[in-house]
Amino acid sequence: MLVLEIEDIKTLISKIGYKEFYLELIKTMEEDYSAWESFDKCPRVANHVDGGVIELMPISNDTLYSFKYVNGHPKNPTQHKMTVMATGQLSLTKTGEPLMFTEMTLLTALRTAANSAMAAKYLAKKDSRILTLIGTGAQSEFQYLAFSYIFDLKEVRYYDTDPKAMEKFATNMSQYNILLTPCKDAYEATQGADIVTTCTADKRYQTVLTKDMIQKDVFINALGGDCPGKTELQKELVEESTVVVEFLEQAKIEGEIQQLSSSFTCTEIYEIIRGEKQLNVATHGTIIFDSVGFALEDYSVLRLIYNLAQKNNIGKEMNLIPKLNDVKNLFSLL
Amino acid sequence: MLVLEIEDIKTLISKIGYKEFYLELIKTMEEDYSAWESFDKCPRVANHVDGGVIELMPISNDTLYSFKYVNGHPKNPTQHKMTVMATGQLSLTKTGEPLMFTEMTLLTALRTAANSAMAAKYLAKKDSRILTLIGTGAQSEFQYLAFSYIFDLKEVRYYDTDPKAMEKFATNMSQYNILLTPCKDAYEATQGADIVTTCTADKRYQTVLTKDMIQKDVFINALGGDCPGKTELQKELVEESTVVVEFLEQAKIEGEIQQLSSSFTCTEIYEIIRGEKQLNVATHGTIIFDSVGFALEDYSVLRLIYNLAQKNNIGKEMNLIPKLNDVKNLFSLL
Repeated sequence: MLVLEIEDIKTLISKIGYKEFYLELIKTMEEDYSAWESFDKCPRVANHVDGGVIELMPISNDTLYSFKYVNGHPKNPTQHKMTVMATGQLSLTKTGEPLMFTEMTLLTALRTAANSAMAAKYLAKKDSRILTLIGTGAQSEFQYLAFSYIFDLKEVRYYDTDPKAMEKFATNMSQYNILLTPCKDAYEATQGADIVTTCTADKRYQTVLTKDMIQKDVFINALGGDCPGKTELQKELVEESTVVVEFLEQAKIEGEIQQLSSSFTCTEIYEIIRGEKQLNVATHGTIIFDSVGFALEDYSVLRLIYNLAQKNNIGKEMNLIPKLNDVKNLFSLL
Repeated sequence: MLVLEIEDIKTLISKIGYKEFYLELIKTMEEDYSAWESFDKCPRVANHVDGGVIELMPISNDTLYSFKYVNGHPKNPTQHKMTVMATGQLSLTKTGEPLMFTEMTLLTALRTAANSAMAAKYLAKKDSRILTLIGTGAQSEFQYLAFSYIFDLKEVRYYDTDPKAMEKFATNMSQYNILLTPCKDAYEATQGADIVTTCTADKRYQTVLTKDMIQKDVFINALGGDCPGKTELQKELVEESTVVVEFLEQAKIEGEIQQLSSSFTCTEIYEIIRGEKQLNVATHGTIIFDSVGFALEDYSVLRLIYNLAQKNNIGKEMNLIPKLNDVKNLFSLL
């Protein structure tokens, strides 16, 4: 069984290059979303614990099975621990044999950003120039990079309740040729935006973004409302916009639309990717991608990483699965 | 994060000794079962795939969270792969931080046998001498060993539809001072038995054990009926015996009792361990432990192994979880 550590992911991506990696990941996700019906899907399995949530996200088709372990503990930074940490495994469906175990904290940040950019490619205005980030935590730079490969961005406007997170973002971003506009609040950050990503960590009903902040039609990439009792957008804003989700059954439990009636229904992103429905801010006004993070995105990044790791001979083969001449003789191992 | 390979488990157990390990594991399970209400429990999450099933088994209390990945593919041996393969992870509940990833194929065999012996300690006759094993696959020797530390066994009667599996069992067992009686069918194997373990792999409704085979009161440890559509005992035998399960909600989906009415109810093993109910074959006649394998047993073996691995400095520390001075600066890793 192949095991990939953080350095292995770093090595792989630097070999391939950021842009190529993101574009390849978006392509892989589009392939998998297009095969929507071939997947055995379920909402993730959550243990709600004091101070956070711990989740398992399984998915499979005829070829591969994947799961991710991921936590969300908003108070972790006060103990110098990350809010979100993740690991994941890929297996063969036909035999159940595990192929790879890997770090997934980095991979989650990468796949989340790729998923955002993929959705925006279809739903945002083609000539989107101004990106707003509300929340400049661990996900923020990944978001910028992924969008920058799809759109000709001119400005990033950003705001976080934590000034240190804003400074960190500015420092990391200084290497890129883009106008950086720190803002004093979400209202200021949203002015003139073509794309707004909300990505905050508090596990409660919030109104990070309200109707009055939105002064022109915009693509809202709502990432942080991703757990029962955890939303970011004002209910009226959700009601008055066109909403697209990843997987309706899960989004109703975890997404912004948990604020709406349980009979609410909307477009799922696979319909957009397959061209069965066409939606764009230019023609349909403000669109919210109510993204909660779905197991299919993990499946995509795991199968891509596994292929790349094999091709580039990266990772450590470890003896985690018994190899036996007589498979019924497990006892011989001891 | 600590990673344990198969050799690490082997090293640990040979350091401690089989008997001590099994007894310690039984003690750990008893502690955890006794704290039943403190656990956040759910039936396992199953992806039913062509040729088998792939499952995730999460559980948590205030201190630790664990999950196991496990498959069951009865046709795997024809491709020289094991029917059951497993991996598992242990995390801290308060922060979600993963502590350990480990092989769990061996650990599953060990914890299943320990769980059987633990239940038998309470439910079987104290003077049980004859153990019958129907199915001598990967689990069989583990079963014998665990029972041998609790009961003064004099004979093991055994049967498997695969003669090679019976030969393998006999070879592995030759090191122990016990009368071995190979039998030509399940009927012959069951004669005179005090304890019967059924552990077969076919994913279908079977009647490995029927009412007419049982000629005296016996403790039936029914392991192999552990999946929807997969049972081993004749319905009438289940109806006429006293049934004990691990976790009623899951047993109704997966256990022998899936054959009974959905309103069926029975004792859960934690009630026995806490002494809230007393049941024994000597006083209550035939008792079936309708064991499907519950996440709590994995939790117990994972927390025991983690403690032992730390104490004995075993396993490999790997860089699977980012360690950052500024926890919001995940981007600095790339």
